[in-house]
Amino acid sequence: MSNIYDHAYHLEKAIRESTDFQNLKSAYEAVMNDPESKQMFESFRDTQLNLQEKQMQGLDITDEEVEKARNVVELVQDNPTIAKLMEEEQRLNVIIGDISSIITKPLEEVYGFNQDEQ
Amino acid sequence: MSNIYDHAYHLEKAIRESTDFQNLKSAYEAVMNDPESKQMFESFRDTQLNLQEKQMQGLDITDEEVEKARNVVELVQDNPTIAKLMEEEQRLNVIIGDISSIITKPLEEVYGFNQDEQ
Ligand SMILES: [Ca+2]
Ligand SMILES: [Ca+2]
Repeated sequence: MSNIYDHAYHLEKAIRESTDFQNLKSAYEAVMNDPESKQMFESFRDTQLNLQEKQMQGLDITDEEVEKARNVVELVQDNPTIAKLMEEEQRLNVIIGDISSIITKPLEEVYGFNQDEQ
Repeated sequence: MSNIYDHAYHLEKAIRESTDFQNLKSAYEAVMNDPESKQMFESFRDTQLNLQEKQMQGLDITDEEVEKARNVVELVQDNPTIAKLMEEEQRLNVIIGDISSIITKPLEEVYGFNQDEQ
């Protein structure tokens, strides 16, 4: 039991010390240190969260909101500092997804999935 | 980078070798090796998955389905072999949840959550 947690903390440390994580951190700080990019990124994040929330609640999304979201995405895509951050986020997401697949494999085997991989 | 994956595989091994995981595996096998429990457990799982699917698609759940689900849950709760499996599943879910919190902590810190824990 404690062994599992020891290994989880070792993994956390490896993530924290990885080039991929350090690059993400730098990319995030670059956005936060540029007022224009920061404001644009926060506006993008707010817009995404609002739309997600509405979708989850089954609420209608107005034409005005679709238009606003489209504008924010266009602004964000043209901003190289934010584009860099999104690239690094994507990279970390792949790693986190891989880790999740690796550590849930024992459970999948119990429940009979991926039996050909055993 | 490869270091992250090394640690992820070490963690997977620690999970696989843990008493908690071995107990889950035994509890699952006990259910699968008892035809009555197996059939009940599979019926329970199918019912849960069907209801989840309907909810996600925003479809109505009929009175008949609610009644059927209630019956299946009652049967399952009275079966000690399945009750044991669910207890072990719950235990593993807590561990997996803890691991997930531990390894996503660096990301949370980048995005400014849990700043008091840094
Ligand atoms: Ca600028
Ligand atoms: Ca029996």
